[in-house]
This record gives sequence, C-alpha cells and structure tokens, in this order.
Amino acid sequence: MIVVVTPNPAVDVTYRVDEQRVGTTQRVRNVDRRPGGKGLNVARVLHAEGVRTHSVLPLGGAAGAWVADAVAALGLDATTVPVPGETRTTVTVVDDLTHPTMFGEPGPSVPPGSWSHVDGAVRAALGPTAPDETVALVLSGSLPVGAEPTVVVPWVTDAVAAGVLVVADLSGPSLLAAADAGATVCKPNREELAEATGLPDERDGALDLLRRGAGLVVVSRGADGIAAHALDDVVEVPAVPGVTGNPTGAGDAATAGLVLALSRGADTALALRTAAAFGAAAVLRPVAGEIDHDAAHRFLSALDPTRSPA
Amino acid sequence: MIVVVTPNPAVDVTYRVDEQRVGTTQRVRNVDRRPGGKGLNVARVLHAEGVRTHSVLPLGGAAGAWVADAVAALGLDATTVPVPGETRTTVTVVDDLTHPTMFGEPGPSVPPGSWSHVDGAVRAALGPTAPDETVALVLSGSLPVGAEPTVVVPWVTDAVAAGVLVVADLSGPSLLAAADAGATVCKPNREELAEATGLPDERDGALDLLRRGAGLVVVSRGADGIAAHALDDVVEVPAVPGVTGNPTGAGDAATAGLVLALSRGADTALALRTAAAFGAAAVLRPVAGEIDHDAAHRFLSALDPTRSPA
Repeated sequence: MIVVVTPNPAVDVTYRVDEQRVGTTQRVRNVDRRPGGKGLNVARVLHAEGVRTHSVLPLGGAAGAWVADAVAALGLDATTVPVPGETRTTVTVVDDLTHPTMFGEPGPSVPPGSWSHVDGAVRAALGPTAPDETVALVLSGSLPVGAEPTVVVPWVTDAVAAGVLVVADLSGPSLLAAADAGATVCKPNREELAEATGLPDERDGALDLLRRGAGLVVVSRGADGIAAHALDDVVEVPAVPGVTGNPTGAGDAATAGLVLALSRGADTALALRTAAAFGAAAVLRPVAGEIDHDAAHRFLSALDPTRSPA
Repeated sequence: MIVVVTPNPAVDVTYRVDEQRVGTTQRVRNVDRRPGGKGLNVARVLHAEGVRTHSVLPLGGAAGAWVADAVAALGLDATTVPVPGETRTTVTVVDDLTHPTMFGEPGPSVPPGSWSHVDGAVRAALGPTAPDETVALVLSGSLPVGAEPTVVVPWVTDAVAAGVLVVADLSGPSLLAAADAGATVCKPNREELAEATGLPDERDGALDLLRRGAGLVVVSRGADGIAAHALDDVVEVPAVPGVTGNPTGAGDAATAGLVLALSRGADTALALRTAAAFGAAAVLRPVAGEIDHDAAHRFLSALDPTRSPA
C-alpha cells in the first residue's frame, strides 16, 4: 500500500467560456468539477496502475464533502480528517482563443488539533492494524496558507522510523522541513528547488537538501528531463521527445511513476525513466490525474539513462 | 407571511485578486461566499425589515447543501426541494483597478418531478396548514437553463386562486408565462421587459404583459426611477438622487419594498416610492441582500410621485 497525504486538497473547477474578457459577465458554457490537489492526482495514477493506495485528506465544509464523495466514487481508499472552514476551490477559465486563467483560493485555516489527526491517520497506516503493508508515503502539494511548514515533520519521521520510503513532493519551507526530517526522496521541480533553497543553481540547491537530511533529490525539469542528485552522483534522464498535449498533472504522474518504481526496488535510473515515462503519458491525457497506460510502458522501454559523476 | 420562490439559487462567490489578467495564475487574496439568487436577496431584505418570509429553494449537491446551511444560519425559513446535480455557483472576480468579471454557471438540470415538489411547497404555504397566513408570493430570478418557462404557471394560478398577491420578478419566456397566468404584478427592469416582449418601447412592452393578464407592470429604470403601468394609467417615481455605491441587488431590494408596501395595502404611488427607497438604500450597502434601514425610511419620506395619464 502507498499512503498519499494531500495537505491541501481542492475542488478543481474548469469553466469553458466563449471568450475570456476582464470586466464582463460571462456565461459558463460547460462546468467540469473534479477532486484535486497534487496528492490526489498521484493517488489516482497509482490506483489506475493497480497499486493499492490510501489517501489522507484534511477536508472541510461543503467543498470538502464534495471531494470526499468524489474520491469515494473514484474507488480511492481515504481517511478524511474534518477541518473547520471550506476546502479550497481552484477555478480555471478556458476558451479556444488564449491561455487559461487560474484562480486559486488559499484554502482553509487548519488548526493544530486537525494536524494531530492527520498525524494519527498516517501513523495508523504505518502500524500493524493497517489493511495492507505500507511500502511508501507520498507527501504532495501545497500546505494551506498559514499552516506551519513543520506540520510535515511527524509524517516523515514516523514513516522513516517504520522503514517506509518517503517521497516529499512539496515546495517552499515545507520542502526544507521534509529534508530536515530525513525524507528518503525530495522531489521538487527546478523552480520549486530554487525558490525553497534560495539557490539558483540546481546542483547547489540539491546539495542543500541532501545536507539537511534528504536521501535523494529528484528534480523534474519539464522538457529538459529529470535528474536525481545524491551527494556524490547525478543521474539524468531526458524527457520523452515529441510529446504534446496537456502538461497539467504531468509532474504528479512523474511522482507516481517514481514512487511506484522505487517501492518495487528499482534503481535510481529505472525510477527516473519510469517517472519520465509516466509524466509524458500524462501529457497525452486531457485531464490531470490520468495517464495513457500503454504509452507509459512504450516510453519506458525507449528511455536511456545517462550517469555522470557530480 | 411572504413566500419567495427562487427557482435557481446560487452560491455567490467573490474573489479578490491583485490584478485581473487573462491567461495567468492568480492568487485569490480573499474569498467571500454567500447564498444568492434574486429571490434570496428579496427574502433577506424582507426578513431584515421584520417581515416573516418562507423561501422555496430547489437545491442540489454540495453547493445546494451549502446554500441550505447558509440560509438557515441567516435565520430564514425555507423549504428545500432536492434536485439532481449541483446548484450553480457564480464567481465574481474583483480588483481595485477595473470592473468586476462575473462567471455564471448555468445551474442544474431540474426534472419535472422536482418542479412538482416546488408546486407542492408553494401550495402548502398557501393552505390552512401554513404556519402563518400568506399575503404575497414573490417569484424572483432566472430559471435553470433548460427549464420550461411554464413551470412558474401553477405557482401563479394557485396563489391567485387563494387571493394572494403575486409579484413576478422574472425575465424572458417565464415572465410572459407569469403574465399569461395572471400575476398581480410583473416587475421586470426596462431591458428585461424589452427582451421578453420583443418591444423596445416600454409602454408597448408593458401593454403586452397587461393584455396577457398581468394586473400591473412595474418597470425599474435604474437612475431613471421606476414606473407602474396599468391599462389606462402610468405612475412614475424618480430615483433617489445622489446615491452612489454598490448597485448589485438594488433591483431585488426594490422588489422587496414593492411587495412589502403592496402587501400592507399601499396604493401604487406609495408602493413605487417604497421600491425606489429600498433600491437606493441597497446601493449604500456593500453586498446584495441588505439595505440601509434608516436611509430607506429617510428616502421614503422625501420621494414624490408623479401621476400622468397614459
């Protein structure tokens, strides 16, 4: 079982309009609503690949109830931790003329007591009463505005103490906190790494996280592929060439591929190839949280890692 | 008791952003959520004026549950009619730089069986088992996309048969259907009247509704005041001069003032003055569904009607 914590789940709403124009009243032609947050995308990809997952979701209000129902309808196992306030909504407005516009709510104010319940849910999934042995813990996505970045620490330390692989797909101070706590893998993209560490050079940023305590730093580079930094070694895999489509959720699919491969004992090179293949296979699907299964396995056999000394 | 039917309630969400720009990702600085739909604004204004109201609300999904909770929290009596799908949301994006942008969802698809339950709720409010004598029925706002405009007919005919004043604050074909069914008052604004009747001249449009069966046609004209058309008579009241602020919901407040005055036996001139005063007093409040009580009563004493032959 792979446990996925989504600290700040969302209702992802897409509005299709005829033409986006500021300052006007626009009739929404089509409304699409789906449960979102990076961790839920990771869990959905793993679930579709036949992996047993368990999601931990702090949820509040009517929007939270909607997410809980939608997650259940997708067949995903989950523990819901009730929080005060309304789970955030993101609204993405699209037309056929220009780029989408995205409005992101900050999310609810989650009190310390609710975070303790998240800790308890993670601990339960690591313990002897869990329905299946937990082999990996994924922490993925933003924290609600105002949350202490150190809320992630007990999740990392409990899992590490239980001998479970921890992949921290976080950003900002919570990424640093996960590294400090000894996460097995930190997996920022290049921009998140630079922003969290304040170091513009990728290798410098990765070394910062490694020296804090991360076991490996995997950096997704979009069209420039993906790299795994250890203290004495960098492994790089190029992106799958010639793939076009919807990049939303590609990073989450890459995280799913990475954790799936590592949890099955793959070496770093194979894990990176799996991440790159899953990311590219997500681009072929119109929505986040899904990958083109056949394409993923075709891409996987075509990719070749390059190992270079640091 | 005044019964208010809101055929298409909404969650009205306002997002404050730093600067509206198409094609970008925007952090929402502040989220405001309130129960909306024109009928709910009317009910809130009446309730704040000490009038007993009963709202009839077709509601669906998590958004519908949110509206039901919010209406209860406001202390409004209501009958909720469950409908399939999600009650609509409107998202208004504001900044300090330009005009708001409003995105309006179409609303759920309400099947005939649900409309029968709305009919039943209206009929119950008109009957001997109602908690208080119903003196007026207000029908206010849009119908969900795809609803037959004639769904309003039984509400009008049942209320008229029970001797209850019916104010139809509707638009498009449902306004015509309410007139056909003999609504005591049709209350479109000038643009809605022209659009529904296809007649650009206000008097021509009003005569169309009167000949269909409306008892009186009250036309709100924004800054140009408000007029009541009968077959042989037009009464006009100017707008309250020099009032600036937020015009959202001013028309709904005017409807509340109109129905309140008429239900208390006011003549047409006093009812129009009350409508104009309530509309202006709503402009002084930052949100729809509220009026400045003291200002409304100050404005009321200052307004002077002008009666002219048709």
